Amino acid sequence: MTTQHAPVSVLGLGSMGIALARALLRAGVPTTVWNRTSERARPLAGEGARVAPGLEAAVAASDLVIVCLRDHDAVREVLGGLDPSAYEGRVVVNLSSSTPGEGRASAAWAADQGITYLNGAIMVPTMLIGDPEALILYSGNQVAFDRAQDRLRPLAGLTTHLGSDPGQAALYDVAMLEIFFASMTSFLHATAMVTASGITAREFLPFAQQMAALGGTVMEGLAADVDVHQFDGTEDTLEMELAALDHIVHTSDEAGLDGTLARHMRDLVRRAVDAGHGADAFSRVVEMVRHQP
Amino acid sequence: MTTQHAPVSVLGLGSMGIALARALLRAGVPTTVWNRTSERARPLAGEGARVAPGLEAAVAASDLVIVCLRDHDAVREVLGGLDPSAYEGRVVVNLSSSTPGEGRASAAWAADQGITYLNGAIMVPTMLIGDPEALILYSGNQVAFDRAQDRLRPLAGLTTHLGSDPGQAALYDVAMLEIFFASMTSFLHATAMVTASGITAREFLPFAQQMAALGGTVMEGLAADVDVHQFDGTEDTLEMELAALDHIVHTSDEAGLDGTLARHMRDLVRRAVDAGHGADAFSRVVEMVRHQP
Ligand SMILES: NC(=O)c1ccc[n+]([C@@H]2O[C@H](COP(=O)([O-])OP(=O)(O)OC[C@H]3O[C@@H](n4cnc5c(N)ncnc54)[C@H](OP(=O)(O)O)[C@@H]3O)[C@@H](O)[C@H]2O)c1
Ligand SMILES: NC(=O)c1ccc[n+]([C@@H]2O[C@H](COP(=O)([O-])OP(=O)(O)OC[C@H]3O[C@@H](n4cnc5c(N)ncnc54)[C@H](OP(=O)(O)O)[C@@H]3O)[C@@H](O)[C@H]2O)c1
Repeated sequence: MTTQHAPVSVLGLGSMGIALARALLRAGVPTTVWNRTSERARPLAGEGARVAPGLEAAVAASDLVIVCLRDHDAVREVLGGLDPSAYEGRVVVNLSSSTPGEGRASAAWAADQGITYLNGAIMVPTMLIGDPEALILYSGNQVAFDRAQDRLRPLAGLTTHLGSDPGQAALYDVAMLEIFFASMTSFLHATAMVTASGITAREFLPFAQQMAALGGTVMEGLAADVDVHQFDGTEDTLEMELAALDHIVHTSDEAGLDGTLARHMRDLVRRAVDAGHGADAFSRVVEMVRHQP
Repeated sequence: MTTQHAPVSVLGLGSMGIALARALLRAGVPTTVWNRTSERARPLAGEGARVAPGLEAAVAASDLVIVCLRDHDAVREVLGGLDPSAYEGRVVVNLSSSTPGEGRASAAWAADQGITYLNGAIMVPTMLIGDPEALILYSGNQVAFDRAQDRLRPLAGLTTHLGSDPGQAALYDVAMLEIFFASMTSFLHATAMVTASGITAREFLPFAQQMAALGGTVMEGLAADVDVHQFDGTEDTLEMELAALDHIVHTSDEAGLDGTLARHMRDLVRRAVDAGHGADAFSRVVEMVRHQP
């Protein structure tokens, strides 16, 4: 079976752009590459990529143009360097990270230029690009996604279009990353507490992992509460949780550590208790973060 | 088959003390109960518990005395109300929550009184007491644990003695809870961000759960780095993570939320980058929390 693949151009050959180009090449997609600093394209030439002599040629080479630069400012600077007519008949997919606001602004800018444009957010490190489990989120222009998706799929098995808001991919990106960073940060602070008593991080690890798993389970109940705006306490109340958070803060202080994380969590709960919500469930905290203290 | 169970006394019938007494009764253990406010013992009388007429009788009734009060101050107040000779031949197991420092102080106090004493930390809510998957951690006096463990096991399938430091059970308790609270808090803040854009918490839930699972996996690498004091960056560097954390802070600000959590994580990473560790891995953050800013 021989499949005739439609070509793709990749603008930006940082470590992520290179990984994207390689995944396309592995899938047999005719791939044209371009980078501001042209030397970075050299290794890909030997792997079957066509190296475009310039930006204009790179865009001209394919009706699907993937751009992956440091940020959206760089993307607008690069894309804005050509006359908008250069993008006629093309779909531009921007896989550079951003805030939701920047994602929306870039989509509005592209619409202004008449560019058919889609935002994406890469949720995996470079070594997982091309993996069946890799997740890349897209949002905005559904027509652009439908036209591009067969050629986007070699980049990530989990190629998901979320909805029409061009900021949504970035929104999920930052929201997911916050949970990921909080998991790592709390583990490292907890580890600093146990190692201060002579316990190794690896001894503590399985106990920490149990809590990570429990956290994932408990999120279901929290999500249900948030959606119905109902925070009635059942078994665990904020009053009880405040006592536990006090213990964490004191333990961090006893060990001489930076306890800002625990202190912030305790303060959120204390604000809720002080506002008369002591018998509520932890889900009430969503109302606390919704208002600056 | 008839087993002759040795008796157990339970001091303190808050919601947890009641759950402990019930689990013992279900396992066929002759159980004597006592509470400062005696009415709280009444329901247990109908379930087969012996209600002691006073503290002295409660302690006299069993060679294993479990105490579960609001905090360690209350425990010392109650236990200190009897002459130390009342505890002769008895093991006292304290399942009230505390900091590691308080746990050590209580053990030292008990040793002073000549009381054979063990600290424990209950890691599950009352409804899971007696479950094969329930976890109760113990630390300190190994001899006391060995004498008591057959009668502690009906309380929790995962009945675990950690080590000789009487503060260790409380240390694991607070360290584990910090990870659990950080998981819930970051989920609720992330949820506040997505719901501000009209997405429901339940739509976002599966994406959040993926991050919780990823966090559990990544902890392995972090623990290894911490134990060998080696924080070399590989794929993800603190420099890259700083950009992502900036996006989280800005997204929280755009939505008008309390972004203290994200801001704290960004500041830890920024301090590391400013100190010349921009090419290091996230595990470097353990060194940042080890020193107050
Ligand atoms: N690496 C990852 O694991 C990962 C994971 C998820 C998402 N991402 C996102 O993917 C994007 C790229 O990341 P990366 O790791 O490939 O970054 P990188 O290795 O630092 O590469 C940055 C790229 O942006 C280009 N660039 C920067 N400013 C430019 C400008 N003003 N004009 C033209 N080109 C410019 C650079 O070109 P020069 O070579 O000429 O400097 C280079 O190609 C980022 O938004 C990042 O957040 C990366
Ligand atoms: N409930 C849970 O899910 C859970 C989970 C893990 C750990 N724990 C820990 O278990 C312990 C008990 O929790 P709980 O939920 O049972 O609390 P609770 O329902 O508030 O009950 C508190 C108990 O402490 C007694 N008490 C407080 N101060 C006292 C004093 N000065 N002298 C004598 N008795 C005193 C109370 O007696 P009165 O009835 O006379 O007031 C009552 O029996 C706490 O350390 C808690 O952190 C609880």
